Amino acid sequence: MPDRKQFRDLAPPERAHEAIGSLSLSPAPETVPLEDAAGRVLADRVDATLDVPGFDRASVDGYALRAADTFGADEADPARLELVGEVHAGTEPDVEVAEGECAEISTGAVVPPGADAVVMVERTDRDDDAVLVRTSLAPGDRIMFAGADIAGGERALGPGTELTAREIGLLSALGVDEVPVRGRPTVGIVSTGDELVRPGQPLDADRGEIYDVNSYAVAAGVREAGGEPRLYEHAGDDYDAMEAVLREAAAECDLVLSSGSTSASAVDVIYRVIEDSGELLLHGVAVKPGKPMLVGRLAESAYVGLPGYPVSALTIFRTFVAPAIREAAGLPEPRTATVEGRMAVSERYAEGRLRLMPVGLVADGDGETLVYPVDKGSGATTSLVEADGVVEVPADTERLDEGETVTVQSFSPNVRTPTVYGVGEDDPALSRLLDRVERPRYLALGSREGLRRLRNGVPDVAVTSAPGDPGFDADELGAWNREWGLVVPAGNPDGVSGLGDLVDSELRFVNRTSNAGLRTTLGNALADLAAERDVDRHDLVSAIEGFDAGVRAHESPARRVSAGKADVGLGLRATADSLGMGFVPCGTERVRLLGNPDRVAKPGVRALAEAVASGDDVFDALAGYDADRD
Amino acid sequence: MPDRKQFRDLAPPERAHEAIGSLSLSPAPETVPLEDAAGRVLADRVDATLDVPGFDRASVDGYALRAADTFGADEADPARLELVGEVHAGTEPDVEVAEGECAEISTGAVVPPGADAVVMVERTDRDDDAVLVRTSLAPGDRIMFAGADIAGGERALGPGTELTAREIGLLSALGVDEVPVRGRPTVGIVSTGDELVRPGQPLDADRGEIYDVNSYAVAAGVREAGGEPRLYEHAGDDYDAMEAVLREAAAECDLVLSSGSTSASAVDVIYRVIEDSGELLLHGVAVKPGKPMLVGRLAESAYVGLPGYPVSALTIFRTFVAPAIREAAGLPEPRTATVEGRMAVSERYAEGRLRLMPVGLVADGDGETLVYPVDKGSGATTSLVEADGVVEVPADTERLDEGETVTVQSFSPNVRTPTVYGVGEDDPALSRLLDRVERPRYLALGSREGLRRLRNGVPDVAVTSAPGDPGFDADELGAWNREWGLVVPAGNPDGVSGLGDLVDSELRFVNRTSNAGLRTTLGNALADLAAERDVDRHDLVSAIEGFDAGVRAHESPARRVSAGKADVGLGLRATADSLGMGFVPCGTERVRLLGNPDRVAKPGVRALAEAVASGDDVFDALAGYDADRD
Repeated sequence: MPDRKQFRDLAPPERAHEAIGSLSLSPAPETVPLEDAAGRVLADRVDATLDVPGFDRASVDGYALRAADTFGADEADPARLELVGEVHAGTEPDVEVAEGECAEISTGAVVPPGADAVVMVERTDRDDDAVLVRTSLAPGDRIMFAGADIAGGERALGPGTELTAREIGLLSALGVDEVPVRGRPTVGIVSTGDELVRPGQPLDADRGEIYDVNSYAVAAGVREAGGEPRLYEHAGDDYDAMEAVLREAAAECDLVLSSGSTSASAVDVIYRVIEDSGELLLHGVAVKPGKPMLVGRLAESAYVGLPGYPVSALTIFRTFVAPAIREAAGLPEPRTATVEGRMAVSERYAEGRLRLMPVGLVADGDGETLVYPVDKGSGATTSLVEADGVVEVPADTERLDEGETVTVQSFSPNVRTPTVYGVGEDDPALSRLLDRVERPRYLALGSREGLRRLRNGVPDVAVTSAPGDPGFDADELGAWNREWGLVVPAGNPDGVSGLGDLVDSELRFVNRTSNAGLRTTLGNALADLAAERDVDRHDLVSAIEGFDAGVRAHESPARRVSAGKADVGLGLRATADSLGMGFVPCGTERVRLLGNPDRVAKPGVRALAEAVASGDDVFDALAGYDADRD
Repeated sequence: MPDRKQFRDLAPPERAHEAIGSLSLSPAPETVPLEDAAGRVLADRVDATLDVPGFDRASVDGYALRAADTFGADEADPARLELVGEVHAGTEPDVEVAEGECAEISTGAVVPPGADAVVMVERTDRDDDAVLVRTSLAPGDRIMFAGADIAGGERALGPGTELTAREIGLLSALGVDEVPVRGRPTVGIVSTGDELVRPGQPLDADRGEIYDVNSYAVAAGVREAGGEPRLYEHAGDDYDAMEAVLREAAAECDLVLSSGSTSASAVDVIYRVIEDSGELLLHGVAVKPGKPMLVGRLAESAYVGLPGYPVSALTIFRTFVAPAIREAAGLPEPRTATVEGRMAVSERYAEGRLRLMPVGLVADGDGETLVYPVDKGSGATTSLVEADGVVEVPADTERLDEGETVTVQSFSPNVRTPTVYGVGEDDPALSRLLDRVERPRYLALGSREGLRRLRNGVPDVAVTSAPGDPGFDADELGAWNREWGLVVPAGNPDGVSGLGDLVDSELRFVNRTSNAGLRTTLGNALADLAAERDVDRHDLVSAIEGFDAGVRAHESPARRVSAGKADVGLGLRATADSLGMGFVPCGTERVRLLGNPDRVAKPGVRALAEAVASGDDVFDALAGYDADRD
């Protein structure tokens, strides 16, 4: 066993903020072309170096004239001025306006010498070479004087200004085409762990390889925070390789983040590299998730070691690292949307650390927000997208009660609660129907879990293949039928003909987990078979190799068979069909969409019910499916 | 006069939304590498094509074993298991665990055959080649089973999902390295108007040239909305050139925006090109600013003609075009932050069009938000950055009263009201001192306007060089002195020696506008001169050529002199010094920072006062300045 660091003296979260704050991440300012300046932060004050406009400018289409010539003029008694020329925008006036004269002028053109006002064309009439001005003007009317917008020498924008379309507009007006901006901190991301493989590369699951989740996810987080991510080649867990890549990253970046491995040996190697080549300021923080966080310096660069599990890594990144990157980039802390809601369930917690609890949001029938914890274990990546935000639970809070009001820090300022939240059976038709609903959330945890949660009042709908009355109040919002049976290799090499073969032959069988409605359907069919054979159901199933175990999703048994790890799997005709495998039909089961009666008026629930009702094309396209229109 | 289109039948704003909504801007979906997918929107559903994890995975460092061997074990009575091997993350197990045996295992490693649980190292002790397990385990403990996170065939992400760091993480876990995303609409920006010059190019103000503001500003807006801007070479106002560039843009883009020129002739040419090469759906909208908006089709592309004035162009873009771009890109409408506030002044309006009134925000002494209109005329670009958001005033609202509550749609979700809002004298030292305050807003409108507005209760502070009691309650928060006089060309070719020369010689003089405190100071000095000479003050000043006119900013008179348009300008020694010009001193004036007594505790006001108090380095660096420490 490696000499595992125990993180015994966990630092309070404030200490972690301080430690990161004490590091210098700020890169040197740089100059960028105006067209690339949006989103950047001004490094220096920008003063106008010219007048805007640079000349006395006509604000309307009309005639430039001397205001004194129009004194007393009105509709009935116009002033008559001689038209002596014209001035267009973008040309130098070649006319001078004397007493009793005027010149035609277009919007934006230079007011010619001699003129001190412009009358809009709508207040005039032409009379051969004369213009009748039917209003009195004051000097300066309809003229924007040189420098009236901003004058040379004036302060235009201050340092620290974030450049949006509006500031880009002002800089354009000043003729600025290169802008001094704060540098973006370069953030190196070093992924560690012998078992990690970059997405897109082949994966050997037998060796325990998994895809590297943190590199691209943290890189996206770095970019969102205004930093420039740089991914480094994955380093193995040995000291020399790790030291080489960390030193390379430290030489090239303002901040180095390591992340990826969950193994103690990799953490230990990093720990030693930092101690040898830099300084460790902090080791372990009293926060869940994310305890094993490191903060220090690595050569000239700042360093933060993120936890290996993706949820932990992103939570720690968001809470502690992103604010430091934004600060270095000069960007404001985003106004994270906060949402008030009531706890949908009770939640206990007694670890004495600040808890950043990921939660999902769902609107109840009255439109009030319910908050439910999302906790699939820190190794799960799906919980990344099943949560809408985080509730900060103080270290001394041991329990949140159902109905208690909590504040959720949303993951983004644009909180968009799912329109419908469902739990239940994993079904390929449902998966396609959900595409027709805007922002659904559906957890394919099986019929049993769907019904359990629907009864507890959290989701809007459950999808179940269990027949009969669920035992609580629920509305049936739609249904369809699917053919189930045994999935076998293409060509059915073992000549499987039905459920009896599972009992009678030495076939390795793959069942679904006990939450799957399909497993219940199989169980019922086997009970019928036992009755038919007049044997004990328990004896019957115990003769099936692999019956007690189970895998999660509708394709999982078929995939086991396909990989040669089993001979027969429980599954759907549609699955066998789509994977090009053989299929032995055993029956048809009815899958129902059940709704919480208080929620059936929610637009998302109605949209899903409508998708089922009008989903014939989906059912037609899947083998063994048909709509159920009872 | 060109045949001007009159926009007589203005469409209601809803019609403009409908017309743009009827155009198809949506580009084809595309596939991008995972590392570039953040911020994009998923075009298709992504199902898992593999199990995550792909194997039964140890969740802790410890020992893989058979749970049955530990039944009944506890601290006092551990189970003793023979250690038969080890499994590390990223390696295939080369050991099988039989009854009474265990294998060392690291977090993330493959659970070896035979084992059905893992015990964490903390609950064990080593005893030579044996391991003492001091707890009872159930099958499955500390194992994450294959597919438990997400299983092959499961729905992972639905179409329309916006990809953030979290979704990128899930896609990484699935090994996805290429992502099908909605295309970004390509938006061509055609700038029109003979008078427009791209920033960075030389400008000939005598010809009435101005920098093109809309191209880069609208491009930044397009990017913010999720589109891909493409700038086209500026087209002149003649039909052939305009038609060529509009056709080129239409062939290459999903949407073409024209913008730039305010002249009726350019608008007319565009109008004709659209009628000849496409279809005009809408011409003129009942909204202020932004009446002259065009919506139509240009060959295969959608087309919107933006008004020429920058404030109008960006307002129309934000209100009507950006939502259509977001829709085409599949991005959600951002939750625009809205701010409630009280009108700081009354505002009349009676044009019978929807008004999108740009407003600034300032916190009063109680922290309540005051809202004031920002209206410098539609030709002004500075009002772009002097407003914080927009109040929608319905067409039938003729008056907003002071104190009335209004809702401000902030320009960005991160509303950041300026920390201090000041109005007053244009002063180069102040400009530098403001750099030391976070997010100040200062309008250099002159001492007179500063005092007027301070008295009316809108700004926090005024900066004035007018001496004496302002006539209302105000706190002096700091002061400095500046030397003023006459700015002349380098070497003083006319041998100007003082104010008397303005009266006695034929010098062309440039004064400041009447809001400038410096003009008042000059007036007082001339009154003294008249008294000294025993002549009428009016006769004295009327002998000065150019006295009655005036230019806005502290550098403006000097710039006129420098350009050869005048011989002498009113100004500061610091200005003459920084522009390398000659200077004839006339006196010193005291510039004061005055505060609204209710607002002096505001952090931004205190920061500015502190910047003045500690600004000796700024005063030392500017010729003719010193701190005033009374």
